[in-house]
Amino acid sequence: MGSRRLLHPSCPAAAEATAAPPAAPPAAISSQDDLKRVAALRAVELVRSGMVLGLGTGSTAAHALDRIGDLLRRGDLRDVVGIPTSEWAAARAAAAGIPLSDLNSHPVIDLSIDGADEVDPALNLVKGRGGSLLREKMVEGASRRFVVIVDESKLVPRLGGSGLAIPVEVIPFGWALTLRRLRSLFDGTSGFNLKLRTASINAKASAFTEKESELEPFVTDNKNYIVDLFFEYGIDGNLRAISDDILRITGVVEHGMFLGLATSVIVARQDGVVVLDKEGKSNGF
Amino acid sequence: MGSRRLLHPSCPAAAEATAAPPAAPPAAISSQDDLKRVAALRAVELVRSGMVLGLGTGSTAAHALDRIGDLLRRGDLRDVVGIPTSEWAAARAAAAGIPLSDLNSHPVIDLSIDGADEVDPALNLVKGRGGSLLREKMVEGASRRFVVIVDESKLVPRLGGSGLAIPVEVIPFGWALTLRRLRSLFDGTSGFNLKLRTASINAKASAFTEKESELEPFVTDNKNYIVDLFFEYGIDGNLRAISDDILRITGVVEHGMFLGLATSVIVARQDGVVVLDKEGKSNGF
Repeated sequence: MGSRRLLHPSCPAAAEATAAPPAAPPAAISSQDDLKRVAALRAVELVRSGMVLGLGTGSTAAHALDRIGDLLRRGDLRDVVGIPTSEWAAARAAAAGIPLSDLNSHPVIDLSIDGADEVDPALNLVKGRGGSLLREKMVEGASRRFVVIVDESKLVPRLGGSGLAIPVEVIPFGWALTLRRLRSLFDGTSGFNLKLRTASINAKASAFTEKESELEPFVTDNKNYIVDLFFEYGIDGNLRAISDDILRITGVVEHGMFLGLATSVIVARQDGVVVLDKEGKSNGF
Repeated sequence: MGSRRLLHPSCPAAAEATAAPPAAPPAAISSQDDLKRVAALRAVELVRSGMVLGLGTGSTAAHALDRIGDLLRRGDLRDVVGIPTSEWAAARAAAAGIPLSDLNSHPVIDLSIDGADEVDPALNLVKGRGGSLLREKMVEGASRRFVVIVDESKLVPRLGGSGLAIPVEVIPFGWALTLRRLRSLFDGTSGFNLKLRTASINAKASAFTEKESELEPFVTDNKNYIVDLFFEYGIDGNLRAISDDILRITGVVEHGMFLGLATSVIVARQDGVVVLDKEGKSNGF
């Protein structure tokens, strides 16, 4: 797969974005984690003193949290307030020394920085494989600017296209019925499958056995369950209509498709950093 | 307000329904609770041995639960399984001696019987002033037949028209933001208001004081909050579109408008019982 394909040739941004000078000199060969860090550091350049920040969840966002903490410690940044998107983000940000508050106290957020599981050519996202999709969507939907940080492996031609899960958060009450209705919604979709996300009751047990009985439902920060949807060939169709169909199912709280929420996406590639923005042109910040 | 108006003259059912012979002879003057009981007993006539039953919540449903318990005790009914729509219904049904199960074991329900806060001419409902709208909607949406039992005071020309609340269940995380978004949705709607539902921390304290500080958010069976919407003049517009708009707000779990779910509505009036059904004609059962 060539780098042009990863950059969504179907997106008007692709040509211009590719033409933009990379911010960092191309490295020899970077690990995926190096790329995540590169994207995160680039995003943190947007943070200014006094900002209310939405703090993302996951291995890419972790680099941003650590970096913001460094800048605060060095005095290069002051008076920022962080709104975490998960219990995990709250703990990680607290450890990094970032002062925290919540959405009720700060209903408008200046800038959110977070990773994503997938990014399509229109900058729609799949998020929430880590299980915190609802809080992420609330915080990032309340942000003036939402900057997504990914390595190039997260770019897909269609949502679901990576073959990994699109998560749906559901109320525990009647979850099997909710799952059945989700299945009906995609009945006849070739390559579709779904299942309740489970977690090992304890890691030690699962190291020795893989029995179904050792698993229990994964529980979100909101005490709900996750049903994971899989689309072998990606989601085909009108994403907003599909979103409405999912949300109409009683028992569904939210899903992991973030449609039209990202302001820009910072993509770290082996040959440099590319910034895609909503208007389909590269953005030099 | 005359009885014809209460029977929704705009509904094709009204003329025929009014023409149908009342099942019970007109009583002199019945209390509202008498009327609720009359409607409930009429609904329980539909229960057969071996059925899986959706068990409603509230003062009208209570009469149905008690009646089903009586029939089981007398041996007139056997082998029914009840699926409660709330913790309250579970407790009341258990006390009445009704065997209970859950939606995951019985995803298809033969008959649900429940009250409603409002019924419009198209048999759309408002439910959930008791706070259990989500479980009610799941159970009743999974039912082959959903029979609503009300006294005549519940009939309204438009949903919201009674001036009482249309409840929306929301995730506690970021509830103030969710409330703000709900307010924006109905911005400019004359007579619209909304507020977080609260409950006294304890009843004794509230008997002596009415301080705001004595209140905390009301918590549903699913551990969520309720935002109550008020429409002084009822909801005007396409109810399904409004439903989608509400469900699209991140943090909203479900709302109390039950659109197209009721199979029939049994209305107990001072001058007798009238049954309205989905096809707009009276139903003699």
